[in-house]
Amino acid sequence: MTDIKLNHLAIVVDDMVAALRFWRESLGLAQTGEIESVPAEAVDIAFLSLGDAHIELIQPTSSDSGVAKYLAKRGPGLHHLCLEVPDLEAKLNELRARGYELINETPRERDGRRYAFIHPKSAGGVLLELYESI
Amino acid sequence: MTDIKLNHLAIVVDDMVAALRFWRESLGLAQTGEIESVPAEAVDIAFLSLGDAHIELIQPTSSDSGVAKYLAKRGPGLHHLCLEVPDLEAKLNELRARGYELINETPRERDGRRYAFIHPKSAGGVLLELYESI
Repeated sequence: MTDIKLNHLAIVVDDMVAALRFWRESLGLAQTGEIESVPAEAVDIAFLSLGDAHIELIQPTSSDSGVAKYLAKRGPGLHHLCLEVPDLEAKLNELRARGYELINETPRERDGRRYAFIHPKSAGGVLLELYESI
Repeated sequence: MTDIKLNHLAIVVDDMVAALRFWRESLGLAQTGEIESVPAEAVDIAFLSLGDAHIELIQPTSSDSGVAKYLAKRGPGLHHLCLEVPDLEAKLNELRARGYELINETPRERDGRRYAFIHPKSAGGVLLELYESI
């Protein structure tokens, strides 16, 4: 048994209204909270409940953010995977020691959580976020 | 509260050994069972435990399957999302009635489970599998 849990799975969308019509109204997932604007990252986000985890819908609100460029290049769809780990710093040190490439060499902090992204080329093409609640 | 649960999240890989080195040995996810060959779909698969759900690693073993073409076109990474629903047929009927496009108009059955895929163009770019245990 491992102590790693799914925190959220992020989906980049080009139309939040249409996305909520599908995932919430048609499929039946429960939305947690309202659509939030995150101006610092130039995105609108919404969360759908998936047991203890969430699906995060992300819509870019400018054309020059990383998410906007991803959307322009690859189209809407699965964007990143966020796993919760008990000790983020220890996990990052272990991955670094094994030669994997981190996007965030030290954890970032926001809203009572610490997180860091692992580079997709080190995680088999997956943009992986590791997360620790603090 | 919804009765929809994550069943698995599938990642297409081009090197199963390297993928297991990352997700199992370095990150620390527990592998469930051994690597399985599924000749009917021309893939090798491995499962990693994520609470009640799984990450499914998929490596194509021929160059002409759907997964192989996906890998050739988009590279390794997140491939599809599988959600478990209580009544698959009712959910498919509802989605069809709302105008969404299904890949499998009627559920397929294998190994005590029924499943159907929703077309990515109806699910915001996500290849979505709906699943019911029987």
